[in-house]
This record gives sequence, structure tokens and C-alpha cells, in this order.
Amino acid sequence: MTVRFAILGAGRIGQVHARAVASTEGASLVAIADPMAAAAQKVAANYGCDIRTIDAIAASDDVDAVAICTPTDTHATLIEQFARAGKAVFCEKPIDLDLERVKECLKTVSEENATLMVGFNRRFDPDFMALKKAIDDGKIGDVEMVTISSRDPGAPPAEYIKVSGGIFRDMTIHDFDVARWLLGEEIATVQAAASVLTDSEIGKLGDYDSVNVILTTESGKQCTITNSRRATYGYDQRIEVLGSKGSVSAENMREANIVLADESGFHQPPLLDFFMTRYIAAYANEIAGFVAAVSGKTATPTTGHDGMVALALADAALLSVAEQRVVKLSELKVST
Amino acid sequence: MTVRFAILGAGRIGQVHARAVASTEGASLVAIADPMAAAAQKVAANYGCDIRTIDAIAASDDVDAVAICTPTDTHATLIEQFARAGKAVFCEKPIDLDLERVKECLKTVSEENATLMVGFNRRFDPDFMALKKAIDDGKIGDVEMVTISSRDPGAPPAEYIKVSGGIFRDMTIHDFDVARWLLGEEIATVQAAASVLTDSEIGKLGDYDSVNVILTTESGKQCTITNSRRATYGYDQRIEVLGSKGSVSAENMREANIVLADESGFHQPPLLDFFMTRYIAAYANEIAGFVAAVSGKTATPTTGHDGMVALALADAALLSVAEQRVVKLSELKVST
Amino acid sequence: MTVRFAILGAGRIGQVHARAVASTEGASLVAIADPMAAAAQKVAANYGCDIRTIDAIAASDDVDAVAICTPTDTHATLIEQFARAGKAVFCEKPIDLDLERVKECLKTVSEENATLMVGFNRRFDPDFMALKKAIDDGKIGDVEMVTISSRDPGAPPAEYIKVSGGIFRDMTIHDFDVARWLLGEEIATVQAAASVLTDSEIGKLGDYDSVNVILTTESGKQCTITNSRRATYGYDQRIEVLGSKGSVSAENMREANIVLADESGFHQPPLLDFFMTRYIAAYANEIAGFVAAVSGKTATPTTGHDGMVALALADAALLSVAEQRVVKLSELKVST
Amino acid sequence: MTVRFAILGAGRIGQVHARAVASTEGASLVAIADPMAAAAQKVAANYGCDIRTIDAIAASDDVDAVAICTPTDTHATLIEQFARAGKAVFCEKPIDLDLERVKECLKTVSEENATLMVGFNRRFDPDFMALKKAIDDGKIGDVEMVTISSRDPGAPPAEYIKVSGGIFRDMTIHDFDVARWLLGEEIATVQAAASVLTDSEIGKLGDYDSVNVILTTESGKQCTITNSRRATYGYDQRIEVLGSKGSVSAENMREANIVLADESGFHQPPLLDFFMTRYIAAYANEIAGFVAAVSGKTATPTTGHDGMVALALADAALLSVAEQRVVKLSELKVST
Repeated sequence: MTVRFAILGAGRIGQVHARAVASTEGASLVAIADPMAAAAQKVAANYGCDIRTIDAIAASDDVDAVAICTPTDTHATLIEQFARAGKAVFCEKPIDLDLERVKECLKTVSEENATLMVGFNRRFDPDFMALKKAIDDGKIGDVEMVTISSRDPGAPPAEYIKVSGGIFRDMTIHDFDVARWLLGEEIATVQAAASVLTDSEIGKLGDYDSVNVILTTESGKQCTITNSRRATYGYDQRIEVLGSKGSVSAENMREANIVLADESGFHQPPLLDFFMTRYIAAYANEIAGFVAAVSGKTATPTTGHDGMVALALADAALLSVAEQRVVKLSELKVST
Repeated sequence: MTVRFAILGAGRIGQVHARAVASTEGASLVAIADPMAAAAQKVAANYGCDIRTIDAIAASDDVDAVAICTPTDTHATLIEQFARAGKAVFCEKPIDLDLERVKECLKTVSEENATLMVGFNRRFDPDFMALKKAIDDGKIGDVEMVTISSRDPGAPPAEYIKVSGGIFRDMTIHDFDVARWLLGEEIATVQAAASVLTDSEIGKLGDYDSVNVILTTESGKQCTITNSRRATYGYDQRIEVLGSKGSVSAENMREANIVLADESGFHQPPLLDFFMTRYIAAYANEIAGFVAAVSGKTATPTTGHDGMVALALADAALLSVAEQRVVKLSELKVST
Repeated sequence: MTVRFAILGAGRIGQVHARAVASTEGASLVAIADPMAAAAQKVAANYGCDIRTIDAIAASDDVDAVAICTPTDTHATLIEQFARAGKAVFCEKPIDLDLERVKECLKTVSEENATLMVGFNRRFDPDFMALKKAIDDGKIGDVEMVTISSRDPGAPPAEYIKVSGGIFRDMTIHDFDVARWLLGEEIATVQAAASVLTDSEIGKLGDYDSVNVILTTESGKQCTITNSRRATYGYDQRIEVLGSKGSVSAENMREANIVLADESGFHQPPLLDFFMTRYIAAYANEIAGFVAAVSGKTATPTTGHDGMVALALADAALLSVAEQRVVKLSELKVST
Repeated sequence: MTVRFAILGAGRIGQVHARAVASTEGASLVAIADPMAAAAQKVAANYGCDIRTIDAIAASDDVDAVAICTPTDTHATLIEQFARAGKAVFCEKPIDLDLERVKECLKTVSEENATLMVGFNRRFDPDFMALKKAIDDGKIGDVEMVTISSRDPGAPPAEYIKVSGGIFRDMTIHDFDVARWLLGEEIATVQAAASVLTDSEIGKLGDYDSVNVILTTESGKQCTITNSRRATYGYDQRIEVLGSKGSVSAENMREANIVLADESGFHQPPLLDFFMTRYIAAYANEIAGFVAAVSGKTATPTTGHDGMVALALADAALLSVAEQRVVKLSELKVST
């Protein structure tokens, strides 16, 4: 069986997924939709697929699945439209910036018994998968503490910040999902600190650029997340997990694997510059995982529920900063 | 000028300082005091010094300085006694487990215009000093975030836990001091999470073995501290500082600098096993720093005030855990 | 302009090049030839190309270039056939195992004014390219010494050894080419040691499995090459270059970028297992380099002459082992 | 039993050994000898020992052992004098630059049944000892290939070069000894290349600054040694051993264990600058090893015979360069 795809949105991330679909065994790219004709034409030309409207895709018999790569404020509505149209849906995070809207959307997905996968790409990174496998293989015993370092090379433009939902919902949300994945136990409480240190413009927009979060589970396992919108040395993405028998950590990836030594010491190149290069393999694995799920070979790897809980953790972090206290996830009224 | 030392207490840490004094240029070891005759005799034999009582040392004309290496509950009283006796005082942390007692003790030190140095050995570790120098040299621009990982290889015996004042006052206190040293700005707030994950006995004693702390300064700089009483791979002591222009980190030290490669991969030896081996150079530098201060060449590197603030941060962390909220250091009523 | 390719030989390396051609911008795969129908059909199905005979390809108007991926003993004849047919030729190393036959073949190529590129894939590895760029950028000053470590994870089957021409012509030949590339000066002398240490069967076939070579240039620059047919920890491929101002080295690549720490120490996964995974990016870059040359954008990166000199160095190494002396490359009568 | 030492020569290496003797349990420093009064007085003051003439030391009843740290051309005669005087002798390498003189000297040592240890400090480096232990523990199976990289940070002054015996006898001699130690089998053949690349003055003195050597044993094990008199990034001292089951390598030691990351990449400090800092622990272990041997607890770790064979290998390397051929160690007529 081949899963026949349409991509909604031909922007940067839409192009990433188009390439992933085209190179995935068992998947084919049938159509691309984008209001910007030039963007759609570029994808159509590169991969030899049709250009169609979103509604035409919903009505297409030759499309089994869609990848939603449109602006965030359209996600929930499109998920609902395509769930109703009987298509399997892959959607970039987040489902919506409003937790209640997400709950409503998931209700529809559930009623339609639709397949929905939310794009948490990091679970599909080969190094993070190897780290997870080491944990699952019992190499470090019981997980006790997770430490996630995630720093962007630089802040996004103000226009993006404005519609991003803020750093917790836009950036930390990935780390919240990774934390849940690795802790192996639902998160019970959230506490956070947030500052503006890299760019005062971000503060004027009501957002933060530097945050630290502590998560705890019911049994006392802990996770810390450290985020910054600026790391001059590249896209910093590290995970370390301490367990009863040892620890496992995933290191960063560099532009090149060389060492220069001179009078001033030893030098290595900066890190891969951003998610497009750092997670190139992860995006391919992610689509392959979706294809396997749609083909009925596996369960959906990252569900709508995962998307909802990660958003609730972001909301809890914001509340913790506002009220300077530990927030229980149960206050957000999401089932876990 | 040679600074003539007496060591109070011939236990493990007293022996470390005896060796450091004996090998420091400009210092000589004159006397050792310990109620356990065998312990005192061993030090006396190794370094060719006298055995005297504490009171005799206080009255000795040939002693310029003492290093207090006795149990914690004697520290404050001894500091006061030797400050009054006109001796320069080096005291192992903490001054006392009770913040009010510490304030009282420091009042005496101040009235006597005595030199008091508190033993925060990490500031004297060569690698951490190199990291601090990189910051001071402007290599990473403005400091924004400090990340301190500090894990003991294994928990101390229950007898020790009972009188330790708890993990924040016994173990994290070192990290609080390092945080202040590196942030370059006084800490304004403290929030913490604490669990018992490695040994339920620790919980029965009312203590924790696994904690994470977030500190913030007035301007929004942040520091996270992660502590565990167990790290199977050795004594884990890492610091990472993110600044506006880059980051600097200090790596762990291994038992040997070799790599074994075989069918199962690449293998390196565990870390140095504990503070006695890991900080051997730091203890020597620490005494050298004290000698330089007593000789009038430099200011006292780590003062009684530093000891008091670190203890207040520990108290604030405990309060944060108890009340599940962010605690302002100002609530503890210590001048910073 | 699109360079239209035919691949001769649908074996392991033919498949590598088919994939590279298919994914290279400016290249298209038109035809595959292989006497084994099943192998040819698999490539044809994967990439949607024709199956043709070699002679039909030589006569095809819609083929601009061929990649020769057939057994070694057919290389020279096919190069001549396609040079005469006016096709650009990419040929896997070696051109032939006999130096005189290589000279004859290159004469034909020259007379036909044909484009011939020999597949020395390592020059196209991203890490080695970054190392070369550091040298060319003057980062290490004048090159003085090159150290090449190249170890296979395990020996090839006896059937392969028999027709391989021996370790110097089969394995070291890549290192000879890398040495010439990095020394930036023609090699003047060769001395070598060779043993059978990993598998006595190899010795029975008259070959070696463990060799070390020292090369020198006229001006005294030196290069050492160390080869083994066995490295239990994976495909070991390292280069280090010492210059007047410093050194630059390229490190190995692992299966995953994680570190496991436990009681016994720190552990990392083995290296990528062999050339198919280790040099996946190099093969793609190599074909892209050939396409650029055929399109007239650049000079041919690795020429027939490069192939001939590398083979002469292999012959010189064999002679050195046989006669236990330093051999001058000039004895081999190749123009450099 | 305490081994009572006299040090002959109060220069740089004499001071290193004086400190080592003073800090070694079971050893005491009784006397120092040096024609330069100031140098002798400095050592005497630092360690509280006598100043005596060499002849007085030879006649001293309170001296059990001497450490010969005088210029090379006095070594053999002093060894003979003190062997005859019934003292245990530790002598810095080399015994003499002339192989025949060495043989003669060892004959006397043997006739007097004296203890003679030659100072090959690298065997006592903690990292190299850990590497050797891994081999002895069978971690890499049978040793097949040893790779030794040894580069000085900069060339010694011309005055030193003149009396050094040349790079093979002065610098490579250490690596020859390490090779013998690690190969676990006597060396049968030597071939070498030698150039002047870093400083033409060295060439004018008839010496080389850049050499590579290949050693083989009777059974075909191989060792390569690469030496340069210049490495801008510090004192480069690495060993790698390949065996049938894996490899083990010893890495370099840096000035500090920190990493700086910025826009241009990741940076670590240079290596420890020279043998005085790099091998500080090795020198201490070496004297401890000698003391253990003199005390009858162990065999002498590095004997006069070891010194002789290392010198013969140096002579063989010179002959190989001169005659451009592989030289058999048996040509040098040393018993192995």
C-alpha cells in the first residue's frame, strides 16, 4: 500500500515535508496547496505533483493523508475538515494556541475516529531515539532526572513572535513533549522562571527569551528545561537523563567533524545552524512513522493528546511565572 | 613572612588542609588539635608539628592562623574564640546551620576586625578558575544563564545526614556560592523542587536526595542547579555559563585519560571518585589564597558574608519546597 | 543542461551511484546495464530508467555520461570504448591493476580528448573537505606531515582478495590519493612494512592485512598511512595534518551521538560500519562534482592521471616490501 | 627501610627528581652535588639536604642511591663509579650516545651486580600505565599495531642540539622504549624517514626535526612513531594500540578542562606545554618505582639493557635514513 499525500502549505516547513514524503518508501506526493501560486508551483515542479485547492484536496479520492503546514491559526479548523473528510492528518505543532479550542478539535477527531499525528519532530531524531532506546533497554535503570537544553541560534522576527503564542507555547512546547516521552510518567507540577535578556523588543511584545522550567511527576521524578532564543555557537539541542544505574546523554551535531589546533588551542566548528539542518533525519523519520501508522502497521507515534498536554504544560508554565508559584497540571483540566 | 598555622580537627578534611598548609609556600604547620589522640599523632608525625589543645592554640604566640576542621556545631563558637584571640580564621563551610547564629557570629568577627575565610573550595578549582577568567575576560559577553550540575557518587551515611542540615545546606550550599560567584549579581529569588529517589532512608530522616533549583537575579539572569546524591559514574561536577556572545563550560575529570574501543563501542573510565581526589588542586589553591589574604597581599577570597548568603539561599530553597512558591531572598533578611 | 547518465553494473556500488545520480540536481538516470537481469531490473524499477546493453548505451544519443561500476578487469576496456563513443566517463578505482595497461588506457582517453573521472570518494567527504579547506585557508601554515589511519571493520571474502590486486592496490590506493591531495606536492619516495596479522588465509593468498607506509616529497614533507583489514569498533577513517602553524584533524563518525555513563565508565556507540554508510554524503558529492565537470563548470576533480599515480604508489609500496628498501616513485616511470 | 638519596646535578631535571625524592614515601634526600654553587644551594635550601662533591657522595655511608642528572657525556663514567661504590643508580637517559661505550658500562654494572635504572619516564605516566594495564588485562586481545605521536612544542636551542646525539637518540629514544614496552616482543627491523622542516638551523647542525619510523617485530607486529620538534598547540604525546579485539589510546592533557563556544565555534585550551608539566606525575611514579626496586620489593622497572636497546634502535634509524633501506636490529649487535 502506498499512502498518497497532499501537503497544505508550501512554505519552509511544507517544503521539508514534501521532500520527506517524496523520499519515503510507501508514500507518494499527489498534491500541494498554497494561496501563493509561486510557492505551490515550486513544490509541484520539484516533485511532479498537482496543485489543488484545500477544498479540492478534501474532496480528492486519490489522497489518503494530508500534512498541515499552514499558519497556526488555521490548524484546528483544517484538522476538523480533513478528519471529517476521512483523511489521515499530520499536523505541525501546535494544534492551536488556545487550550479549549484544542480540546474541541480533538473531540471532533475522536468522533470521526480519525488518525491525527502532531509533529513533534524531536522524538524522531536518530540520536534522541538511540538515547530513548538506551533507557528502554534498562541501561540507566529507573529514570530520575531529565535535563533538556534547547537554545535557538537567534530570535525569530517580531512578526513571528507576535503570533507565536509566546516562548513556552512556541519553543518550550517541544521540550515539554520530550520530557513526557523520557520521564515515562505524567507530569504533575510545573514551575518556571522567565526573563528578557537577549532582545528588549521581545519584552515589549509581552514575551520572554530566556526561561528555565522544573517539572515533577507524582512519584518525584524531575525534569529541567533551559531555553534561550540566542546561542551564538549554533542550534543547541542536548538531552541528559540520570537514572538509578547511570546516565545517558545526546550530544550536539557540528557543521563538520574536524579539530583545528594552533597556538591558541583546539577549535571545532559551530553547531548545525537550525532545525532545518539539525533535524533533517528527524523529519524524514517522522513522516515514515506517520506512514507506518496510516498503513496500520503501528500506533500513531505522537497524538493529538500529546499535542494537548504539551500545550497545557506551556499554559501552566506561564501561570507559574505570573503567580510566582508551583502550578499543578491538574489545574489546567486536561486528562492525562 | 610565613603564616604559622594550627589545624583544629585531624579528621579527613583536617588532613587535607594539613597537607595543603605543609606544601604551601609562605605557610608552615605549627600545631594540630584533636580530642582523638591517634588522629592528632598521625598528622603530627606526618608533618612534624606539635599536638596542642584548642585553648593552648588560642593562647599560642607562634600561631598566626587556624583552620577549623571540626564538626559543624562547633564552628561558630570556635570562630568567635579565635577572632577574639587575634588569629586569622579559615573555617570549613558552613559557619552554622542556623542563620541567626551565623549572623551573631559574623557580628563578633566584624567587631574584632578579624580575618575570616569560609572554605568554598570550588572557587579555587583550576578548571572553574579558568572558566571564571574566560567570563571576566569578556569571552562570552554578558552572563545570562548559569547551569550547575553537581552529583555525589553516593549518599553519605545516615549518621552524617542527620547532622548535615539537609541537602540544601550541606550539598547545594557549594552550588549556591558558585552561582553567586559566576552570576556577578546578587540573587533575588529562589524556587526549588526536592524528592527522595535514590534511598528511602534519606526520606525517613526528613531530607531529600534529588533537587533542582532555579535562582534569578534582579535583572533577570538565571541559574539552575541540579543535585543528586547518586551518580554511579563518579563525582559529577560541571558548570556551564551562557552569555550574550557565547558559552563556557567546565568538563568533568576522569580517573585516566584513555579510550578503549571494541565491538561494543568506545569506552572511557569513570570520573574521579569524590571531592578528595577531584578537588585536590582546589584545596591547595584555597589555602594559598588564605595565606595571601592573611599576608595582606589580597582581600579575603570567600568571606563570612559569602558563607551567610549561601546558607540563606539554602533556607530559601527549603521554604520554596515547603510552600510550593518562589521565595525572595529578602524574606530571609540577610544583607546582600 | 542536464547530464544524462547510464550506469554500467548494478551491483552494490552501482546502486550507490544510481541513487546519487537520481538525487543530483542537473543529472538524470537514463539507463542501467547489467548481465544479471534481476539486478538491472531492481535499479530500473527504483529509478524509472531503461535497461540496455553496454553496446546499446555506447550507441545511445540520449546518454551523455556513464558511470563504470563493473568488475575491475573490465574498467580499462570500457573506458576506452566510451571515450571513443564520445561519452564522459566516471570510473570506479582502479582503472586497471596493471600500471602499463593504465598508461595505455589513458593514452586513448587523451587522444579522444575525453572526460575521465576516477572515483576517489574520500576527496568528497564533507569532513575531509572541511579539513582541506582549513589547509587551503592557511589555518595550519605550511603542510609538514600527514597521518592517515584507515582500517576496515573486517576483511573481505577470499574470492574478493584474489582479484583485488592486494591490499596496497585495493585499500591503500585511497590513502595514496588522499596523501597526494593533502601534501600539495608530488610524492618522491615510498617505504612500507606489511604483515599478516588478522587472518592467515590472507597470507596464503599472497596478500597482507596490516601495513604501514611512509611517503616523502622532494622537499621533505612526510606522510604515514596505517591500514588494517580489521577494526572491531567499526570503519576507522581518520586524517591528521601537521603544519607550521598548527594541525587539523578529521574525526570518525559514530552510529549515534550519545554517551552512556555507568559504574564502569563512559560509553559511546561504535563507528559507522563501512563505506556505504560512512561515505554516503561523499558519494553524492562525488557525482555532483562529476556533473559539474561534464557541464563545463569546473575541471575534472579526480582524473585518470590521479588514478595512475595512486596505482604507481601501490606498486612502489609492494616493491619496497619485497626489496626492504626505500623506492623512488621515478622508478615506476609515471609522469607526475 | 628508607632509601637515602643523593642527586648529582642540580639543573632542571635534577630539581624535578629532588622534588620527587622529597615527596616519595620511603625515600629521603641526603645530599646534592653540582659544580654551580648557586644551583646546589637552592636545592639544599628547598629540601634541607647537604651539599657534597660527587666523590664525597660516592664515599658517603649515609647514601644508598644516586640519581644522575648531569650532562650526558658524564653518565657512563658516573654509573661505573657509583656501581663500584655499591650505590643503587638511577640515571637519566641516555647512558651514553655511543653504543659501544654503553655496552662497556653495562658490563661493569653487571660485574658489580649493581642496580641501575634508566629514566624512561613515560612508562610511569598514569595514562600510559592505564593504557598498558588495559592491554595486559586482555581488553584489546593480541597487540598488532602501535602508533606513537610525539611532538615537542618547539625545538631546543642550537647548543643543546649539538650535544644531543640527534633527534633519534635524544627524542625518539623515548618512543623506541615505549614501543618495546607496548609491543611485548622485541623489535626486529627499523626503517625511517627524516627531514628538516621546522628550522633550517637544525639541518646545518646535521640533525633532523621531523621524522617517521616504522618498527616491526619478528612475528610482524608493527609500530609507527611520528616526531616533530614543533607543535604550536603544545606538547603532543599520544599513543594508540590496535589489537585483535579492539584498540586503546591515551589522549593528550590540556592546560584546563574547559570549552568556550562562540560564533566561530568551540574552543579548548592548548596542551600542557612541556615535559615538566605534562609528566609531573610520571616523574614522581618513576622515583617511587626506583625506590621499590632498591628496597627489594620489585624488579628494576627500566634497566640498563632497556637503555642500550633504545639507543641501538636510534642508531638503526639513522642507518636506515643514510642507506635508504630497512635495517635489522641484529646488525647493531645488541643482545635482545
